[in-house]
Amino acid sequence: MAKLVILTEGMTNPSDGKLACAVLRYRTDEVVALIDSTIADGQKTCGDVLNGLGGDIPIYANLDGVEGDTFVIGIAPAGGKLPESWRPVLTEAIRRGMTVLNGLHVFFNDDPELSELAQQSGAEIHDVRCPPDDLTVSENIAKDTPCFRVHTVGEDCNVGKMSAALELDAGLQNAGKVSRFIATGQTGIVVCGKGLPIDRVISDFVAGATERLILEDQDAEFLLVEGQGSLIHPLYSGVTLGLLHGCAPQAMVFCYDANRKFLRHCPDFPIPPLEELIQLYETSASYICPSKVVGICANTSQMTAEEAEREIKTTEDRLQRPVNDPYRYGVQNIVEAIIQAKAQG
Amino acid sequence: MAKLVILTEGMTNPSDGKLACAVLRYRTDEVVALIDSTIADGQKTCGDVLNGLGGDIPIYANLDGVEGDTFVIGIAPAGGKLPESWRPVLTEAIRRGMTVLNGLHVFFNDDPELSELAQQSGAEIHDVRCPPDDLTVSENIAKDTPCFRVHTVGEDCNVGKMSAALELDAGLQNAGKVSRFIATGQTGIVVCGKGLPIDRVISDFVAGATERLILEDQDAEFLLVEGQGSLIHPLYSGVTLGLLHGCAPQAMVFCYDANRKFLRHCPDFPIPPLEELIQLYETSASYICPSKVVGICANTSQMTAEEAEREIKTTEDRLQRPVNDPYRYGVQNIVEAIIQAKAQG
Repeated sequence: MAKLVILTEGMTNPSDGKLACAVLRYRTDEVVALIDSTIADGQKTCGDVLNGLGGDIPIYANLDGVEGDTFVIGIAPAGGKLPESWRPVLTEAIRRGMTVLNGLHVFFNDDPELSELAQQSGAEIHDVRCPPDDLTVSENIAKDTPCFRVHTVGEDCNVGKMSAALELDAGLQNAGKVSRFIATGQTGIVVCGKGLPIDRVISDFVAGATERLILEDQDAEFLLVEGQGSLIHPLYSGVTLGLLHGCAPQAMVFCYDANRKFLRHCPDFPIPPLEELIQLYETSASYICPSKVVGICANTSQMTAEEAEREIKTTEDRLQRPVNDPYRYGVQNIVEAIIQAKAQG
Repeated sequence: MAKLVILTEGMTNPSDGKLACAVLRYRTDEVVALIDSTIADGQKTCGDVLNGLGGDIPIYANLDGVEGDTFVIGIAPAGGKLPESWRPVLTEAIRRGMTVLNGLHVFFNDDPELSELAQQSGAEIHDVRCPPDDLTVSENIAKDTPCFRVHTVGEDCNVGKMSAALELDAGLQNAGKVSRFIATGQTGIVVCGKGLPIDRVISDFVAGATERLILEDQDAEFLLVEGQGSLIHPLYSGVTLGLLHGCAPQAMVFCYDANRKFLRHCPDFPIPPLEELIQLYETSASYICPSKVVGICANTSQMTAEEAEREIKTTEDRLQRPVNDPYRYGVQNIVEAIIQAKAQG
């Protein structure tokens, strides 16, 4: 058990603090405090400002009196750079010898001041977006491994593919299966402690890096591979297809945001019908390994309970597959569909 | 006009010397010699060993008496590393102050001996596979540029997508059009002197790097963007899709090898019917910009003239699009189809 302190300075909200929220949700018992000097008043807790997430975990203005061993950068400022206002608390954490988990585009190990401080204090800095330098092209052998590979794919970025994979992994474990979550992005890596930042590897090595992740976890019966981007996203589609082909899934779970009408970062790009997108994923995947979308995760966070229930029911009727919102109603029906898909080979 | 000396040591053949052959074909007048000590006998010419390619250009064992200003690594040894046996002639070239064009995976600027020698002599080393470090994600604006973007795509790697783009570019220029070849791989970059090695950029930046190439050449009426890999290739598909979406073509030319039955590097992967692949490219491309395959380039180099003619005729009837083998019969019919596609908007 680590003792995590999460920096969310000035951005303690679900949108800017995606990584912080994921850590609060999936490593709850390890989090000892949030740091945000703009809201810390000695009283407010995480739960107060994050819709209950993190419960009584306190929010402090700085590290004074905080006992933690790991300092997590929980937010992603625009541009991915390190705001100078963060430097004092960050250098303090490094001086204390805390392990630093950094998911920003900018690597702290490349910062002369930070890396020198770390050397002096013995602090370890993990720039989780920095890929190892021994990656290679794929050998196209993930498809031949005996585990059942489930890949969460989606209509767009930021619709819940990581959450879906984590919840399905937990659901399979609850059902007594040996299952593993495979992280392919910085948040997933910080949550589960391993993985590769697929969007940062050399493009020729995307499938090879994914294949490596698959080969490393062959003691599991089920692998839940976190998806990235979308096959139709003008900015990131290449990452999505390389990842899809690299993990060669036998089954996919399709994720969408029930309120989204246009692609993220592309306000003039209407999202095509889900049927069409599901067909595109099944066609693209099947060139490597026969694969079907066996369940759908709907993100209904912007809906009332009544709207959400109607959305799930309607989508289930329309797409003829089990549908659920993982955070609202769990994923039991999709877990069952996955187990059934594996049984049917 | 540069004076090019091409190293093809021990590999003076079209398969290992793909880059050498491309330079001999497209920069013929600039090449002063090939270096291959394993076949140089004071008599043999390029034409003698490369089916006429390069004509009377001499082959020497080393640089003695050779007057050149640019030293081109023309071959790609297995693993992409620098064979130690090449070091003497390479260091000699650098000592003379020759510009070095290196398309290998290994970067000469990272080699202490070579970079120090270059510093002493003033030689410039261009590691053409080394991408610039200021690339970013795409802004999805290539689709809005006024030029007519033609992308050569294919069933597989190494079927002639670069050659097709170069020949179509030349054909359009012969037809009086302002056209430009856009290089996306090391061979194309050495041939035309600019471009980006798309398969070596960070995967998140593939579409962005391609977009940059499109934006840089907006003084042309036609852009011929060299394709990479294939949408169905398990090793490289991510690069292919990122490139396709980054250049947002209004038209595509589909390339195939008439004798190929299985994917390169994947001997158990039969190539699907061309109709299906063409459909896949048109569907995938059209999420960004409406696009059709307007012509087909058939690589018939392993066929007799009679077989080639039959292949072209049959494919034309079957796919209802103009078909040609660029090296055998030119691309006039496809150039006309491109001009017509642009006229029809």
